[in-house]
Amino acid sequence: MTSSHRIAVIGGDGIGPEVTAEAVKVLEAASEATIEQTRYDLGAERYLATGEVLPDSVLEEIRTHDAILLGAVGGKPGDPNLPPGILERGLLLKLRFALDHYVNLRPSRIFPGVETPLSEAVLAKGDVDFVVVREGTEGPYTGNGGAVRVGTPHEIATEVSLNTAFGVERVVRDAFARAQARPRRKLTLVHKTNVLVHAGAVWSRVVGEVAQEFPDVEVDYLHVDAATIFLSTDPARFDVVVTDNLFGDIITDLAAAVTGGIGLAASGNVNPDRTAPSMFEPVHGSAPDIAGQQKADPTAAILSSALLLDHLGESDAAARVEKAVLSDLAERVPGTPRRTAEVGDAIASRL
Amino acid sequence: MTSSHRIAVIGGDGIGPEVTAEAVKVLEAASEATIEQTRYDLGAERYLATGEVLPDSVLEEIRTHDAILLGAVGGKPGDPNLPPGILERGLLLKLRFALDHYVNLRPSRIFPGVETPLSEAVLAKGDVDFVVVREGTEGPYTGNGGAVRVGTPHEIATEVSLNTAFGVERVVRDAFARAQARPRRKLTLVHKTNVLVHAGAVWSRVVGEVAQEFPDVEVDYLHVDAATIFLSTDPARFDVVVTDNLFGDIITDLAAAVTGGIGLAASGNVNPDRTAPSMFEPVHGSAPDIAGQQKADPTAAILSSALLLDHLGESDAAARVEKAVLSDLAERVPGTPRRTAEVGDAIASRL
Ligand SMILES: CC(C)[C@H](C(=O)O)[C@@H](O)C(=O)O
Ligand SMILES: CC(C)[C@H](C(=O)O)[C@@H](O)C(=O)O
Repeated sequence: MTSSHRIAVIGGDGIGPEVTAEAVKVLEAASEATIEQTRYDLGAERYLATGEVLPDSVLEEIRTHDAILLGAVGGKPGDPNLPPGILERGLLLKLRFALDHYVNLRPSRIFPGVETPLSEAVLAKGDVDFVVVREGTEGPYTGNGGAVRVGTPHEIATEVSLNTAFGVERVVRDAFARAQARPRRKLTLVHKTNVLVHAGAVWSRVVGEVAQEFPDVEVDYLHVDAATIFLSTDPARFDVVVTDNLFGDIITDLAAAVTGGIGLAASGNVNPDRTAPSMFEPVHGSAPDIAGQQKADPTAAILSSALLLDHLGESDAAARVEKAVLSDLAERVPGTPRRTAEVGDAIASRL
Repeated sequence: MTSSHRIAVIGGDGIGPEVTAEAVKVLEAASEATIEQTRYDLGAERYLATGEVLPDSVLEEIRTHDAILLGAVGGKPGDPNLPPGILERGLLLKLRFALDHYVNLRPSRIFPGVETPLSEAVLAKGDVDFVVVREGTEGPYTGNGGAVRVGTPHEIATEVSLNTAFGVERVVRDAFARAQARPRRKLTLVHKTNVLVHAGAVWSRVVGEVAQEFPDVEVDYLHVDAATIFLSTDPARFDVVVTDNLFGDIITDLAAAVTGGIGLAASGNVNPDRTAPSMFEPVHGSAPDIAGQQKADPTAAILSSALLLDHLGESDAAARVEKAVLSDLAERVPGTPRRTAEVGDAIASRL
């Protein structure tokens, strides 16, 4: 174990800095190593003030860290000075692509005591504990698209989904390895092979091929539309899900919602080859409407720091954070909101 | 009112023919007109036997009808003789495209007495009664894509989403008109404008422009990922949703699931300009595992025939079918399954 972790901390916009502060607090309390943070002031505010999103020099500095902790990025919806995608593509997705975060890891669990939108009958079907392995560097997220006759009645716009056997294989292999390490050893491919036949063929073929290397992992397939049905009526059915970048985006928000809300959903943008630092962030957005009011639940950010610890080899510390969060969740009193920092303090004090 | 409706009936595969038979039964019982059916034997079986999916001559015959009733299309999952997409693209989507079904109408309602997967707390938020207007002729559904080095580790596959101001505007205008005719007058655009920036820009712009013509309709926007959260935690929030072909596919299955299951979800593939017959079908698939066993619930097919009646100007008959379905649903005894034909008989007998 190294005696220090150099963490790049990007609080971002809205509630991002608040929840990230609590994640750092818990990280420091849990880790056996010294946490050396470098803070990066990136996001909507910086862009609006300077026109800069992520300068190359900053990206290169960030690259020298052991890991990245990110809060949330995104300004006020509809801000005319902030065209849609500027920050997402220029910052969040740029980091994912530049640092080759091809495994976008999104665990979903119904923690004891947590309220979910599901009925008793659905919850009675079994324990819900699955992980979505979302591809992070391909699909319709590569920025491949364009438009002609923009702003006219004759406008035509395209969006291109790029899928490579190389890119699909590496994420599928990662997902199989995760499935094999879990008790149920089940992998579900989610796609839309009956309509997106070219991309679907690559995903199906590669899953079939890699499955040969993991004969003890059970494999099944769901169309993305059917997957939303099972996520809302029988989420206990899932163990490891592997899917495309866009489908993964959609089903992980749904997965977060049905397991107790995006206030609890953590994620890792992982570079399994460790050629660049991985990045950990809550699934939720920047929620500018409640920014700066200490109203946001930092649990998702804190659970993201547990994923970070695990990635840096501190699996015991990661487990301690999870346990502290579990205890905190079990003792939450519905209808009694706590300030963001109070939640962080409560979880840190249990470590 | 014409004294007869010429209906092209495509039962399709799996449970398709069974549920369609009940839909026709109810159609005949409800309509003031004579129902002249022409049955078309299309789907997996015909393809496997003859290699034919939808011959041009059959398409031209179908085109002469007043409307189309479709059951479901799709063979056994994984059948090696049935490559993914052959039937979907060759039959179902071919009909939607050839007959210019640009409004894919998918109402969602929680009917009294129907079990849903949602908790009491979610259901207490309000009545759930919304309609998704899914674009039906563009987006990633046009078959625009391809692959090179197929089957090799160097395979690259693309899928192209096509979006035109023309195509977006006509469906958006239809959705606004529907919103205006409903008591709440609310329209939600669902897209992913922060990532699919080119397509997203067309949708956002056109919604903004058409909104000027409907000043009494309230407009809001949700990213598709966030929409899945609201659909599962607060579906009462929605009135009319307008969205892209693929997002519509995904969120309408979710909408069906949270409102009581795809056994109840009806849909219309509508050509509002009436340059070709519209097509009505349940949202569910062919469920080959229970085919021919009279186990399928025909309610979605029957509700689709109500949409058909409404489209052909028989709004009273449509309302009668809906009312009969409502009464039937309210009297269903959980745990006491009825045969497909029994459900159809029960509903028809109430007319
Ligand atoms: C903000 C956006 C670009 C991002 C995505 O679509 O990946 C977010 O929704 C997420 O899931 O991390
Ligand atoms: C079968 C498939 C092509 C179809 C679609 O994706 O549109 C279906 O899922 C639907 O929603 O009608």
